[in-house]
Amino acid sequence: VTRAAVVGIGLIGGSVALGLRARAFDRDEVVRKAARRRGIDVAESLPEALDGADLIVAAVATLDTPAVLQEAAARAPAALLTDVASLKRPAADLAAGLPPGVRYVGGHPMAGGSPPGLDGARATLFAGRPWLIVPTQRSDASSIERVSAEARRLGALPVLVEAERHDALMAWISHLPLAVAASLARAVARAAPEAGAFAGPGLLDTTRLAGARLDLALELWSSDPLRLAAAVDSVAGNLTELAALLRGGDRSALEAFLLEAARARETITGKTKPRRP
Amino acid sequence: VTRAAVVGIGLIGGSVALGLRARAFDRDEVVRKAARRRGIDVAESLPEALDGADLIVAAVATLDTPAVLQEAAARAPAALLTDVASLKRPAADLAAGLPPGVRYVGGHPMAGGSPPGLDGARATLFAGRPWLIVPTQRSDASSIERVSAEARRLGALPVLVEAERHDALMAWISHLPLAVAASLARAVARAAPEAGAFAGPGLLDTTRLAGARLDLALELWSSDPLRLAAAVDSVAGNLTELAALLRGGDRSALEAFLLEAARARETITGKTKPRRP
Repeated sequence: VTRAAVVGIGLIGGSVALGLRARAFDRDEVVRKAARRRGIDVAESLPEALDGADLIVAAVATLDTPAVLQEAAARAPAALLTDVASLKRPAADLAAGLPPGVRYVGGHPMAGGSPPGLDGARATLFAGRPWLIVPTQRSDASSIERVSAEARRLGALPVLVEAERHDALMAWISHLPLAVAASLARAVARAAPEAGAFAGPGLLDTTRLAGARLDLALELWSSDPLRLAAAVDSVAGNLTELAALLRGGDRSALEAFLLEAARARETITGKTKPRRP
Repeated sequence: VTRAAVVGIGLIGGSVALGLRARAFDRDEVVRKAARRRGIDVAESLPEALDGADLIVAAVATLDTPAVLQEAAARAPAALLTDVASLKRPAADLAAGLPPGVRYVGGHPMAGGSPPGLDGARATLFAGRPWLIVPTQRSDASSIERVSAEARRLGALPVLVEAERHDALMAWISHLPLAVAASLARAVARAAPEAGAFAGPGLLDTTRLAGARLDLALELWSSDPLRLAAAVDSVAGNLTELAALLRGGDRSALEAFLLEAARARETITGKTKPRRP
Protein backbone atom coordinates (compact mmCIF):
# COMPACT_ATOMS: atom_id res chain seq x y z
CA VAL A 1 0.00 0.00 0.00
CA THR A 2 1.33 3.41 -0.94
CA ARG A 3 0.29 6.63 0.70
CA ALA A 4 0.71 10.25 -0.37
CA ALA A 5 0.99 13.19 2.02
CA VAL A 6 0.31 16.80 1.07
CA VAL A 7 1.75 19.73 3.04
CA GLY A 8 -0.23 22.95 2.56
CA ILE A 9 -3.96 22.84 1.83
CA GLY A 10 -4.52 25.75 -0.53
CA LEU A 11 -5.96 25.68 -4.04
CA ILE A 12 -3.29 23.29 -5.34
CA GLY A 13 -2.63 21.25 -2.20
CA GLY A 14 -6.33 20.85 -1.48
CA SER A 15 -6.97 19.70 -5.04
CA VAL A 16 -4.09 17.19 -4.87
CA ALA A 17 -5.36 15.88 -1.53
CA LEU A 18 -8.89 15.49 -2.93
CA GLY A 19 -7.70 13.90 -6.19
CA LEU A 20 -5.21 11.46 -4.65
CA ARG A 21 -7.18 10.90 -1.40
CA ALA A 22 -3.96 11.87 0.35
CA ARG A 23 -3.43 12.75 3.99
CA ALA A 24 -2.83 16.50 4.31
CA PHE A 25 -1.57 19.05 6.79
CA ASP A 26 -1.74 22.84 6.93
CA ARG A 27 -0.18 24.99 9.64
CA ASP A 28 -3.39 27.08 9.78
CA GLU A 29 -5.94 25.47 12.10
CA VAL A 30 -8.87 27.22 10.37
CA VAL A 31 -7.78 25.69 7.06
CA ARG A 32 -7.44 22.24 8.67
CA LYS A 33 -11.01 22.43 9.95
CA ALA A 34 -12.32 23.58 6.58
CA ALA A 35 -10.38 20.78 4.84
CA ARG A 36 -11.93 18.21 7.16
CA ARG A 37 -15.38 19.51 6.20
CA ARG A 38 -14.37 18.97 2.55
CA GLY A 39 -13.73 15.31 3.36
CA ILE A 40 -9.94 15.51 3.32
CA ASP A 41 -7.98 13.20 5.66
CA VAL A 42 -6.31 15.94 7.74
CA ALA A 43 -3.44 15.32 10.17
CA GLU A 44 -3.10 17.50 13.27
CA SER A 45 0.68 17.83 12.96
CA LEU A 46 3.32 17.68 10.24
CA PRO A 47 4.94 14.49 11.65
CA GLU A 48 1.52 12.80 11.76
CA ALA A 49 0.95 13.71 8.10
CA LEU A 50 4.35 12.45 6.96
CA ASP A 51 4.38 9.25 9.02
CA GLY A 52 4.24 6.27 6.65
CA ALA A 53 3.99 8.40 3.49
CA ASP A 54 5.91 7.15 0.46
CA LEU A 55 5.23 10.29 -1.58
CA ILE A 56 5.29 13.78 -0.07
CA VAL A 57 3.95 16.79 -2.00
CA ALA A 58 5.05 20.20 -0.69
CA ALA A 59 2.21 22.50 -1.74
CA VAL A 60 3.18 25.69 0.07
CA ALA A 61 4.33 29.10 -1.24
CA THR A 62 7.48 29.00 -3.38
CA LEU A 63 9.53 30.74 -0.69
CA ASP A 64 8.41 28.25 1.97
CA THR A 65 9.02 25.19 -0.20
CA PRO A 66 12.71 24.53 0.66
CA ALA A 67 12.02 24.45 4.42
CA VAL A 68 9.12 22.01 3.98
CA LEU A 69 11.19 19.73 1.71
CA GLN A 70 14.10 19.77 4.15
CA GLU A 71 11.84 18.85 7.04
CA ALA A 72 10.16 16.13 4.98
CA ALA A 73 13.58 14.72 4.00
CA ALA A 74 14.62 14.62 7.66
CA ARG A 75 11.41 12.98 8.92
CA ALA A 76 10.72 10.62 6.01
CA PRO A 77 14.06 9.96 4.29
CA ALA A 78 12.67 6.99 2.34
CA ALA A 79 9.78 8.96 0.81
CA LEU A 80 9.87 10.45 -2.68
CA LEU A 81 9.59 14.25 -2.45
CA THR A 82 7.99 16.60 -4.94
CA ASP A 83 6.59 20.13 -4.87
CA VAL A 84 4.38 22.52 -6.85
CA ALA A 85 6.42 25.72 -6.61
CA SER A 86 6.29 28.06 -9.58
CA LEU A 87 10.07 28.56 -9.78
CA LYS A 88 12.36 25.62 -10.36
CA ARG A 89 15.95 26.98 -10.37
CA PRO A 90 15.77 27.29 -6.53
CA ALA A 91 14.51 23.69 -6.42
CA ALA A 92 17.57 22.49 -8.32
CA ASP A 93 19.82 24.37 -5.89
CA LEU A 94 17.96 22.89 -2.96
CA ALA A 95 18.32 19.33 -4.22
CA ALA A 96 22.09 19.46 -3.85
CA GLY A 97 21.69 20.16 -0.13
CA LEU A 98 19.29 17.33 0.69
CA PRO A 99 20.62 14.35 2.68
CA PRO A 100 22.21 11.59 0.55
CA GLY A 101 19.71 9.03 -0.67
CA VAL A 102 16.70 11.33 -0.57
CA ARG A 103 14.81 11.37 -3.86
CA TYR A 104 13.29 14.64 -5.09
CA VAL A 105 11.58 15.54 -8.38
CA GLY A 106 10.42 19.13 -8.94
CA GLY A 107 6.87 19.71 -10.17
CA HIS A 108 4.71 22.60 -11.32
CA PRO A 109 1.05 22.04 -12.21
CA MET A 110 -0.19 24.73 -14.64
CA ALA A 111 -3.53 25.10 -12.92
CA GLY A 112 -5.20 27.87 -11.01
CA GLY A 113 -8.34 29.90 -10.91
CA SER A 114 -10.79 31.32 -8.50
CA PRO A 115 -11.79 31.35 -5.77
CA PRO A 116 -8.26 31.17 -4.35
CA GLY A 117 -7.31 28.82 -1.52
CA LEU A 118 -9.10 25.71 -0.38
CA ASP A 119 -12.49 27.14 -1.43
CA GLY A 120 -11.49 26.70 -5.07
CA ALA A 121 -9.91 23.26 -4.60
CA ARG A 122 -11.44 20.35 -6.52
CA ALA A 123 -10.25 16.96 -7.73
CA THR A 124 -10.76 18.07 -11.35
CA LEU A 125 -8.58 21.21 -11.13
CA PHE A 126 -5.77 19.60 -13.13
CA ALA A 127 -7.85 17.90 -15.82
CA GLY A 128 -6.20 18.45 -19.20
CA ARG A 129 -3.60 20.86 -17.77
CA PRO A 130 0.16 20.54 -18.19
CA TRP A 131 2.03 19.32 -15.09
CA LEU A 132 5.65 20.32 -15.54
CA ILE A 133 8.10 17.74 -14.22
CA VAL A 134 11.56 19.12 -13.46
CA PRO A 135 14.28 16.54 -12.71
CA THR A 136 16.96 17.44 -10.16
CA GLN A 137 20.26 15.72 -9.38
CA ARG A 138 18.23 13.71 -6.83
CA SER A 139 15.80 12.38 -9.44
CA ASP A 140 16.17 8.87 -10.85
CA ALA A 141 14.07 7.45 -13.69
CA SER A 142 11.64 5.62 -11.42
CA SER A 143 11.08 8.74 -9.28
CA ILE A 144 10.32 10.77 -12.40
CA GLU A 145 7.92 8.09 -13.60
CA ARG A 146 6.16 7.91 -10.22
CA VAL A 147 5.55 11.70 -10.05
CA SER A 148 4.39 11.65 -13.69
CA ALA A 149 2.01 8.78 -12.90
CA GLU A 150 0.46 10.70 -9.97
CA ALA A 151 0.04 13.75 -12.22
CA ARG A 152 -1.76 11.53 -14.75
CA ARG A 153 -3.97 10.12 -11.95
CA LEU A 154 -5.01 13.73 -11.34
CA GLY A 155 -5.93 14.09 -15.02
CA ALA A 156 -2.93 16.28 -15.87
CA LEU A 157 -0.49 15.96 -18.77
CA PRO A 158 3.07 15.50 -17.44
CA VAL A 159 5.69 17.42 -19.45
CA LEU A 160 9.40 17.01 -18.71
CA VAL A 161 11.37 20.26 -18.68
CA GLU A 162 14.80 21.31 -17.42
CA ALA A 163 14.88 23.82 -14.51
CA GLU A 164 16.53 26.73 -16.35
CA ARG A 165 14.22 26.39 -19.33
CA HIS A 166 11.22 26.14 -17.00
CA ASP A 167 12.00 29.42 -15.29
CA ALA A 168 12.73 31.18 -18.59
CA LEU A 169 9.39 30.00 -20.00
CA MET A 170 7.48 31.11 -16.91
CA ALA A 171 8.54 34.71 -17.48
CA TRP A 172 6.55 34.55 -20.74
CA ILE A 173 3.78 32.13 -19.83
CA SER A 174 2.98 33.07 -16.26
CA HIS A 175 4.57 36.32 -15.05
CA LEU A 176 3.98 38.26 -18.29
CA PRO A 177 0.20 37.63 -18.53
CA LEU A 178 -0.10 38.93 -14.97
CA ALA A 179 1.86 42.05 -15.96
CA VAL A 180 -0.36 42.57 -19.01
CA ALA A 181 -3.60 42.01 -17.09
CA ALA A 182 -2.47 44.45 -14.39
CA SER A 183 -1.51 47.11 -16.97
CA LEU A 184 -4.80 46.74 -18.84
CA ALA A 185 -6.88 46.90 -15.65
CA ARG A 186 -5.01 50.02 -14.53
CA ALA A 187 -5.48 51.78 -17.88
CA VAL A 188 -9.20 50.94 -18.13
CA ALA A 189 -10.08 51.91 -14.55
CA ARG A 190 -8.31 55.25 -14.98
CA ALA A 191 -10.04 56.05 -18.27
CA ALA A 192 -13.45 54.52 -17.56
CA PRO A 193 -14.14 54.40 -13.80
CA GLU A 194 -17.72 53.33 -14.57
CA ALA A 195 -16.40 50.18 -16.32
CA GLY A 196 -17.91 47.92 -13.66
CA ALA A 197 -21.42 48.54 -14.92
CA PHE A 198 -20.49 47.69 -18.51
CA ALA A 199 -17.80 45.02 -18.49
CA GLY A 200 -18.40 41.87 -20.50
CA PRO A 201 -16.60 38.54 -20.39
CA GLY A 202 -13.81 39.76 -22.70
CA LEU A 203 -12.56 42.48 -20.36
CA LEU A 204 -13.21 40.28 -17.32
CA ASP A 205 -11.14 37.37 -18.69
CA THR A 206 -8.34 39.58 -19.96
CA THR A 207 -7.95 41.33 -16.57
CA ARG A 208 -8.62 38.33 -14.28
CA LEU A 209 -4.98 37.93 -13.24
CA ALA A 210 -4.88 41.54 -12.02
CA GLY A 211 -6.78 40.24 -8.98
CA ALA A 212 -3.96 37.83 -8.06
CA ARG A 213 -2.79 37.72 -4.44
CA LEU A 214 -0.33 40.55 -3.92
CA ASP A 215 2.30 38.45 -2.14
CA LEU A 216 2.26 35.72 -4.82
CA ALA A 217 2.41 38.31 -7.61
CA LEU A 218 5.37 40.10 -6.04
CA GLU A 219 7.14 36.78 -5.51
CA LEU A 220 6.75 35.91 -9.19
CA TRP A 221 7.76 39.35 -10.45
CA SER A 222 10.81 39.46 -8.18
CA SER A 223 12.19 36.12 -9.32
CA ASP A 224 13.79 37.29 -12.55
CA PRO A 225 12.85 40.95 -13.04
CA LEU A 226 15.19 41.65 -15.97
CA ARG A 227 13.87 38.77 -18.04
CA LEU A 228 10.30 39.80 -17.24
CA ALA A 229 11.07 43.44 -18.11
CA ALA A 230 12.23 42.32 -21.57
CA ALA A 231 9.02 40.33 -22.07
CA VAL A 232 6.94 43.33 -20.92
CA ASP A 233 8.79 45.54 -23.40
CA SER A 234 8.01 43.06 -26.15
CA VAL A 235 4.24 43.36 -25.55
CA ALA A 236 4.54 47.15 -25.30
CA GLY A 237 6.30 47.06 -28.68
CA ASN A 238 3.48 45.02 -30.19
CA LEU A 239 0.93 47.51 -28.87
CA THR A 240 2.88 50.48 -30.21
CA GLU A 241 3.07 48.76 -33.60
CA LEU A 242 -0.69 48.20 -33.49
CA ALA A 243 -1.43 51.82 -32.54
CA ALA A 244 0.58 52.95 -35.59
CA LEU A 245 -1.39 50.58 -37.83
CA LEU A 246 -4.67 51.92 -36.45
CA ARG A 247 -3.58 55.53 -37.07
CA GLY A 248 -2.34 54.65 -40.54
CA GLY A 249 -5.68 53.15 -41.54
CA ASP A 250 -4.10 50.28 -43.46
CA ARG A 251 -6.76 47.61 -43.29
CA SER A 252 -4.65 44.84 -44.77
CA ALA A 253 -1.88 45.48 -42.22
CA LEU A 254 -4.45 45.29 -39.41
CA GLU A 255 -5.73 42.06 -40.90
CA ALA A 256 -2.21 40.61 -40.99
CA PHE A 257 -1.69 41.60 -37.34
CA LEU A 258 -4.94 39.87 -36.34
CA LEU A 259 -4.11 36.81 -38.43
CA GLU A 260 -0.76 36.40 -36.71
CA ALA A 261 -2.46 36.86 -33.33
CA ALA A 262 -5.06 34.21 -34.15
CA ARG A 263 -2.32 31.77 -35.20
CA ALA A 264 -0.40 32.66 -32.03
CA ARG A 265 -3.50 31.87 -29.99
CA GLU A 266 -3.66 28.45 -31.66
CA THR A 267 -0.01 27.91 -30.76
CA ILE A 268 -0.83 28.79 -27.14
CA THR A 269 -3.87 26.54 -26.93
CA GLY A 270 -1.81 23.74 -28.45
CA LYS A 271 -4.08 23.46 -31.50
CA THR A 272 -1.15 23.85 -33.87
CA LYS A 273 2.36 22.51 -33.59
CA PRO A 274 4.93 25.22 -33.02
CA ARG A 275 6.71 26.42 -36.15
CA ARG A 276 10.29 27.18 -35.42
CA PRO A 277 11.89 29.95 -37.43
CA VAL B 1 -50.36 37.47 -26.33
CA THR B 2 -47.01 38.99 -27.28
CA ARG B 3 -44.46 37.39 -29.54
CA ALA B 4 -40.77 38.12 -30.10
CA ALA B 5 -38.91 37.45 -33.35
CA VAL B 6 -35.14 37.12 -33.65
CA VAL B 7 -33.29 37.69 -36.93
CA GLY B 8 -29.89 35.98 -37.03
CA ILE B 9 -29.26 32.77 -35.06
CA GLY B 10 -25.67 33.10 -33.90
CA LEU B 11 -24.33 33.04 -30.36
CA ILE B 12 -26.41 36.05 -29.29
CA GLY B 13 -29.48 35.54 -31.47
CA GLY B 14 -29.63 31.83 -30.64
CA SER B 15 -29.38 32.57 -26.93
CA VAL B 16 -32.12 35.21 -27.14
CA ALA B 17 -34.36 32.82 -29.09
CA LEU B 18 -33.79 30.07 -26.52
CA GLY B 19 -34.27 32.39 -23.54
CA LEU B 20 -37.39 34.16 -24.82
CA ARG B 21 -38.80 31.16 -26.72
CA ALA B 22 -38.91 33.47 -29.71
CA ARG B 23 -39.44 32.62 -33.36
CA ALA B 24 -36.17 33.00 -35.22
CA PHE B 25 -34.83 33.25 -38.76
CA ASP B 26 -31.33 32.97 -40.21
CA ARG B 27 -30.49 33.39 -43.88
CA ASP B 28 -28.20 30.33 -43.66
CA GLU B 29 -30.18 27.12 -44.19
CA VAL B 30 -27.59 25.01 -42.33
CA VAL B 31 -27.97 27.27 -39.29
CA ARG B 32 -31.79 27.04 -39.52
CA LYS B 33 -31.61 23.25 -39.46
CA ALA B 34 -29.19 23.25 -36.51
CA ALA B 35 -31.42 25.73 -34.65
CA ARG B 36 -34.43 23.48 -35.13
CA ARG B 37 -32.45 20.62 -33.61
CA ARG B 38 -31.80 22.88 -30.61
CA GLY B 39 -35.57 23.23 -30.17
CA ILE B 40 -35.85 26.77 -31.55
CA ASP B 41 -39.06 27.76 -33.39
CA VAL B 42 -37.45 28.49 -36.77
CA ALA B 43 -39.24 30.29 -39.61
CA GLU B 44 -38.35 29.45 -43.22
CA SER B 45 -38.42 33.08 -44.37
CA LEU B 46 -37.95 36.53 -42.89
CA PRO B 47 -41.61 37.55 -43.49
CA GLU B 48 -42.78 34.36 -41.77
CA ALA B 49 -40.57 35.16 -38.75
CA LEU B 50 -41.79 38.76 -38.47
CA ASP B 51 -45.47 38.07 -39.06
CA GLY B 52 -47.38 38.86 -35.86
CA ALA B 53 -44.27 39.76 -33.85
CA ASP B 54 -44.62 42.70 -31.46
CA LEU B 55 -40.87 42.77 -30.64
CA ILE B 56 -38.17 42.21 -33.26
CA VAL B 57 -34.54 41.63 -32.27
CA ALA B 58 -31.97 42.13 -35.04
CA ALA B 59 -29.10 39.85 -34.00
CA VAL B 60 -26.91 40.03 -37.08
CA ALA B 61 -23.43 41.53 -37.60
CA THR B 62 -23.15 45.23 -36.83
CA LEU B 63 -22.73 46.13 -40.50
CA ASP B 64 -25.84 44.15 -41.48
CA THR B 65 -28.01 45.55 -38.69
CA PRO B 66 -29.38 48.68 -40.46
CA ALA B 67 -30.68 46.65 -43.42
CA VAL B 68 -32.45 44.16 -41.14
CA LEU B 69 -34.01 46.94 -39.05
CA GLN B 70 -35.20 48.75 -42.18
CA GLU B 71 -36.79 45.61 -43.54
CA ALA B 72 -38.39 44.85 -40.17
CA ALA B 73 -39.77 48.39 -39.99
CA ALA B 74 -41.29 48.03 -43.45
CA ARG B 75 -42.85 44.61 -42.82
CA ALA B 76 -43.94 45.05 -39.20
CA PRO B 77 -44.37 48.81 -38.61
CA ALA B 78 -46.25 48.29 -35.35
CA ALA B 79 -43.52 46.14 -33.79
CA LEU B 80 -40.93 47.48 -31.36
CA LEU B 81 -37.44 47.09 -32.86
CA THR B 82 -34.18 46.48 -31.07
CA ASP B 83 -30.76 45.10 -31.94
CA VAL B 84 -27.57 43.75 -30.36
CA ALA B 85 -24.92 45.50 -32.47
CA SER B 86 -21.71 46.44 -30.72
CA LEU B 87 -21.64 50.02 -32.07
CA LYS B 88 -24.46 52.40 -31.27
CA ARG B 89 -23.62 55.70 -33.02
CA PRO B 90 -24.68 54.14 -36.37
CA ALA B 91 -27.90 52.98 -34.68
CA ALA B 92 -28.72 56.52 -33.66
CA ASP B 93 -28.13 57.71 -37.23
CA LEU B 94 -30.29 54.92 -38.56
CA ALA B 95 -33.19 55.77 -36.27
CA ALA B 96 -33.67 59.13 -37.95
CA GLY B 97 -34.27 57.38 -41.27
CA LEU B 98 -36.90 54.91 -40.09
CA PRO B 99 -40.54 55.45 -41.16
CA PRO B 100 -42.53 57.74 -38.85
CA GLY B 101 -44.16 55.92 -35.96
CA VAL B 102 -41.71 53.04 -35.88
CA ARG B 103 -40.27 52.49 -32.39
CA TYR B 104 -36.61 51.49 -32.03
CA VAL B 105 -34.41 51.10 -28.94
CA GLY B 106 -30.73 50.18 -29.38
CA GLY B 107 -29.31 47.31 -27.33
CA HIS B 108 -25.95 45.70 -26.66
CA PRO B 109 -25.69 42.64 -24.42
CA MET B 110 -22.20 42.35 -22.90
CA ALA B 111 -22.04 38.61 -23.34
CA GLY B 112 -19.92 36.32 -25.43
CA GLY B 113 -17.70 33.33 -25.20
CA SER B 114 -16.93 30.15 -26.95
CA PRO B 115 -17.71 28.19 -28.95
CA PRO B 116 -18.81 30.95 -31.36
CA GLY B 117 -22.10 30.82 -33.24
CA LEU B 118 -25.18 28.77 -32.44
CA ASP B 119 -23.05 26.00 -30.89
CA GLY B 120 -22.31 28.27 -27.94
CA ALA B 121 -25.87 29.60 -27.61
CA ARG B 122 -27.71 28.95 -24.35
CA ALA B 123 -30.57 30.55 -22.47
CA THR B 124 -28.21 31.40 -19.59
CA LEU B 125 -25.65 33.31 -21.70
CA PHE B 126 -26.79 36.69 -20.36
CA ALA B 127 -27.15 35.77 -16.68
CA GLY B 128 -25.66 38.54 -14.56
CA ARG B 129 -24.26 40.38 -17.59
CA PRO B 130 -24.90 44.04 -18.41
CA TRP B 131 -27.34 44.65 -21.28
CA LEU B 132 -26.71 48.16 -22.51
CA ILE B 133 -29.89 49.99 -23.54
CA VAL B 134 -29.30 52.90 -25.91
CA PRO B 135 -32.29 55.19 -26.53
CA THR B 136 -32.69 56.73 -30.00
CA GLN B 137 -34.98 59.51 -31.19
CA ARG B 138 -37.48 56.72 -31.92
CA SER B 139 -37.50 55.46 -28.33
CA ASP B 140 -40.31 56.38 -25.92
CA ALA B 141 -40.36 55.49 -22.22
CA SER B 142 -42.55 52.44 -22.65
CA SER B 143 -40.35 51.08 -25.47
CA ILE B 144 -37.26 51.47 -23.27
CA GLU B 145 -39.02 49.73 -20.42
CA ARG B 146 -40.15 46.87 -22.66
CA VAL B 147 -36.63 46.19 -23.98
CA SER B 148 -35.25 46.43 -20.42
CA ALA B 149 -37.88 43.97 -19.22
CA GLU B 150 -36.94 41.43 -21.92
CA ALA B 151 -33.26 41.82 -20.97
CA ARG B 152 -34.20 41.11 -17.34
CA ARG B 153 -36.21 38.06 -18.45
CA LEU B 154 -32.95 36.80 -19.97
CA GLY B 155 -31.22 37.30 -16.61
CA ALA B 156 -29.26 40.38 -17.75
CA LEU B 157 -28.86 43.72 -15.97
CA PRO B 158 -30.20 46.53 -18.19
CA VAL B 159 -28.03 49.68 -18.08
CA LEU B 160 -29.14 52.87 -19.85
CA VAL B 161 -26.37 54.64 -21.77
CA GLU B 162 -26.27 57.34 -24.43
CA ALA B 163 -24.98 56.31 -27.90
CA GLU B 164 -21.84 58.50 -27.98
CA ARG B 165 -20.84 57.44 -24.48
CA HIS B 166 -21.51 53.80 -25.36
CA ASP B 167 -19.15 53.85 -28.32
CA ALA B 168 -16.45 55.72 -26.36
CA LEU B 169 -16.65 53.15 -23.56
CA MET B 170 -16.47 50.24 -25.98
CA ALA B 171 -13.04 51.38 -27.19
CA TRP B 172 -11.80 50.72 -23.64
CA ILE B 173 -14.03 47.85 -22.54
CA SER B 174 -14.31 45.78 -25.68
CA HIS B 175 -11.92 46.77 -28.50
CA LEU B 176 -8.91 47.39 -26.24
CA PRO B 177 -8.94 43.98 -24.47
CA LEU B 178 -8.93 42.36 -27.91
CA ALA B 179 -5.92 44.51 -28.90
CA VAL B 180 -4.10 43.58 -25.70
CA ALA B 181 -4.89 39.87 -26.00
CA ALA B 182 -3.71 39.88 -29.63
CA SER B 183 -0.46 41.68 -28.75
CA LEU B 184 0.26 39.33 -25.85
CA ALA B 185 -0.44 36.22 -27.91
CA ARG B 186 1.82 37.50 -30.69
CA ALA B 187 4.68 38.27 -28.30
CA VAL B 188 4.45 34.93 -26.47
CA ALA B 189 4.22 32.77 -29.59
CA ARG B 190 7.24 34.52 -31.10
CA ALA B 191 9.37 34.13 -27.95
CA ALA B 192 8.12 30.71 -26.81
CA PRO B 193 6.79 28.69 -29.74
CA GLU B 194 6.51 25.67 -27.40
CA ALA B 195 4.03 27.59 -25.21
CA GLY B 196 1.21 25.21 -26.13
CA ALA B 197 2.68 22.41 -24.04
CA PHE B 198 3.03 24.62 -20.97
CA ALA B 199 0.20 27.15 -20.95
CA GLY B 200 -1.95 27.37 -17.83
CA PRO B 201 -5.32 29.06 -17.33
CA GLY B 202 -3.71 32.48 -16.77
CA LEU B 203 -2.18 32.75 -20.24
CA LEU B 204 -5.21 31.06 -21.79
CA ASP B 205 -7.69 33.52 -20.26
CA THR B 206 -5.54 36.56 -20.98
CA THR B 207 -5.16 35.64 -24.67
CA ARG B 208 -8.67 34.23 -25.27
CA LEU B 209 -9.85 37.22 -27.30
CA ALA B 210 -6.95 36.79 -29.75
CA GLY B 211 -8.98 33.92 -31.20
CA ALA B 212 -11.88 36.23 -32.09
CA ARG B 213 -13.40 35.98 -35.56
CA LEU B 214 -11.28 38.03 -37.92
CA ASP B 215 -14.18 39.85 -39.61
CA LEU B 216 -15.76 40.84 -36.28
CA ALA B 217 -12.42 41.96 -34.87
CA LEU B 218 -11.66 44.12 -37.94
CA GLU B 219 -15.15 45.62 -37.78
CA LEU B 220 -14.63 46.64 -34.14
CA TRP B 221 -11.12 48.00 -34.71
CA SER B 222 -12.19 49.98 -37.74
CA SER B 223 -15.09 51.73 -36.01
CA ASP B 224 -13.06 54.41 -34.22
CA PRO B 225 -9.38 53.65 -34.84
CA LEU B 226 -7.99 56.89 -33.40
CA ARG B 227 -9.78 56.47 -30.10
CA LEU B 228 -8.65 52.86 -29.92
CA ALA B 229 -5.06 53.84 -30.79
CA ALA B 230 -5.04 56.21 -27.80
CA ALA B 231 -6.30 53.45 -25.51
CA VAL B 232 -3.66 51.06 -26.89
CA ASP B 233 -0.96 53.68 -26.22
CA SER B 234 -2.20 53.98 -22.67
CA VAL B 235 -1.67 50.27 -21.99
CA ALA B 236 1.74 50.39 -23.71
CA GLY B 237 2.59 53.29 -21.38
CA ASN B 238 1.59 51.26 -18.34
CA LEU B 239 3.77 48.37 -19.52
CA THR B 240 6.74 50.64 -20.15
CA GLU B 241 6.32 52.11 -16.66
CA LEU B 242 6.22 48.58 -15.22
CA ALA B 243 9.36 47.50 -17.12
CA ALA B 244 11.21 50.48 -15.62
CA LEU B 245 10.04 49.52 -12.11
CA LEU B 246 11.21 45.93 -12.66
CA ARG B 247 14.64 47.13 -13.84
CA GLY B 248 14.87 49.60 -10.96
CA GLY B 249 14.27 46.88 -8.40
CA ASP B 250 12.07 49.11 -6.24
CA ARG B 251 9.86 46.59 -4.44
CA SER B 252 7.55 49.17 -2.87
CA ALA B 253 6.89 50.75 -6.27
CA LEU B 254 6.06 47.33 -7.74
CA GLU B 255 3.74 46.74 -4.80
CA ALA B 256 2.00 50.07 -5.42
CA PHE B 257 1.57 49.18 -9.11
CA LEU B 258 0.03 45.82 -8.18
CA LEU B 259 -2.20 47.39 -5.53
CA GLU B 260 -3.59 49.88 -8.03
CA ALA B 261 -4.12 47.04 -10.51
CA ALA B 262 -5.97 44.97 -7.91
CA ARG B 263 -8.23 47.92 -7.08
CA ALA B 264 -8.74 48.51 -10.81
CA ARG B 265 -9.80 44.89 -11.18
CA GLU B 266 -12.38 45.41 -8.41
CA THR B 267 -13.67 48.47 -10.26
CA ILE B 268 -14.00 46.36 -13.41
CA THR B 269 -15.77 43.49 -11.70
CA GLY B 270 -18.09 46.00 -10.04
CA LYS B 271 -16.97 45.03 -6.53
CA THR B 272 -16.15 48.61 -5.66
CA LYS B 273 -17.89 51.80 -6.68
CA PRO B 274 -15.89 53.95 -9.06
CA ARG B 275 -13.84 56.68 -7.44
CA ARG B 276 -13.76 59.72 -9.60
CA PRO B 277 -10.62 61.84 -9.44
